[in-house]
Amino acid sequence: MNRVQVVMGLSGGMDSATLLGYLLEKEMEVICCTFDYGSTHGKYEMEAAEKVIDSYSMIYGSRVRRSKIDITKIFPSFSSSLLVASGKEIPEGNYDADNMKQTVVPGRNLIFASIMAGLAESLGAQKVALGVHSGDHHIYPDCRTEFIKALDTTVYLSSDKKVEVIAPFLNLDKADILNIGHSLQIPVPYHLTRTCYKNQPVSCGRCGSCTERLEAFAKIGKKDPIPYTRA
Amino acid sequence: MNRVQVVMGLSGGMDSATLLGYLLEKEMEVICCTFDYGSTHGKYEMEAAEKVIDSYSMIYGSRVRRSKIDITKIFPSFSSSLLVASGKEIPEGNYDADNMKQTVVPGRNLIFASIMAGLAESLGAQKVALGVHSGDHHIYPDCRTEFIKALDTTVYLSSDKKVEVIAPFLNLDKADILNIGHSLQIPVPYHLTRTCYKNQPVSCGRCGSCTERLEAFAKIGKKDPIPYTRA
Repeated sequence: MNRVQVVMGLSGGMDSATLLGYLLEKEMEVICCTFDYGSTHGKYEMEAAEKVIDSYSMIYGSRVRRSKIDITKIFPSFSSSLLVASGKEIPEGNYDADNMKQTVVPGRNLIFASIMAGLAESLGAQKVALGVHSGDHHIYPDCRTEFIKALDTTVYLSSDKKVEVIAPFLNLDKADILNIGHSLQIPVPYHLTRTCYKNQPVSCGRCGSCTERLEAFAKIGKKDPIPYTRA
Repeated sequence: MNRVQVVMGLSGGMDSATLLGYLLEKEMEVICCTFDYGSTHGKYEMEAAEKVIDSYSMIYGSRVRRSKIDITKIFPSFSSSLLVASGKEIPEGNYDADNMKQTVVPGRNLIFASIMAGLAESLGAQKVALGVHSGDHHIYPDCRTEFIKALDTTVYLSSDKKVEVIAPFLNLDKADILNIGHSLQIPVPYHLTRTCYKNQPVSCGRCGSCTERLEAFAKIGKKDPIPYTRA
């Protein structure tokens, strides 16, 4: 069987873990990129991503592969974003708050997608899958529908029509994504995922990222299986 | 005076040196990115780029700035391209030859442009300028007009309409570019540029890149001011 090969970014969070499970149940072969971009919370994210990959590898074998991409030298050279300036405090509260805009690394999704497109072309993979969803649209311009469409055209042309960009969750919110994850034949191992932006081993439950996650679990009426320091 | 700020990639070759001179005469403030992506010929390119920047700095002062971007860790992790696999022989002859396709690093222009767009947004610069020209169109999909248009839309949307992509030489060939460079008020210091893909201090005059350059100088009836081992 000639499977479709797809390259995706696996952050270790709930959205990308769901995307991985979703693509595997679509019979695809998935290359999971983990990006080390020098963020404060990167170490715990990376550990979560590894656990999620290991968990799926036990079921799907070599249909799940990992590609570590070290971009630590790119962002520190130009970004003043809080997420890449280690040691600084990450703002608490909901992402709606203006101060969460400080967590945007300029052009991050475009840079990640470009690298994944290059990797896909290099490996002969046909698709790059992004886990962006509707909850990100209002704050992150590089998560909006019109951006994803333009990116798809750009990657397609850049690769001489060999690689396309898909974003299956583009019009879904985090609760919809959790519903998909729970309805798959192999439910997503949410207990292994990590969403918190804080630089601490146990998730805080208070930062914008944790708040969004907890709200999504509450919305679908399920308990988030990971521990929080503020439970 | 509030000048337009533009980010461009400076390879050390004749096209990007011309672009730099052209943008400076358009009264812009230029941030020149030099990308170290671990290519065999990178050391000599980087030296040429530095000399070109120093030369313009003596005239334009702080309107020319440099940003070194170290991406050595990205490409070796996935590309099998000859240009990033150090020690291998680069094919000789004209770029029309099929074997020159081996020198394409998949998605290279898209990755470079994405990083420059992120840098531009981060610095508050309004433009990213690319030195692509018509001579590259037939072999490199990521140098073609439709790709540049799609890229411009993508960068514009990614940056929340703050950054746009320009490519002033898109429909010119290398001879046209040389004509522009010679007609500027401050002629481009072509004697400081370097085009050769070979890993040797003096340009070979035989690789595809040297061949194209020499043909362009011949076409405009001027002598290329740099030395060649095969003169």
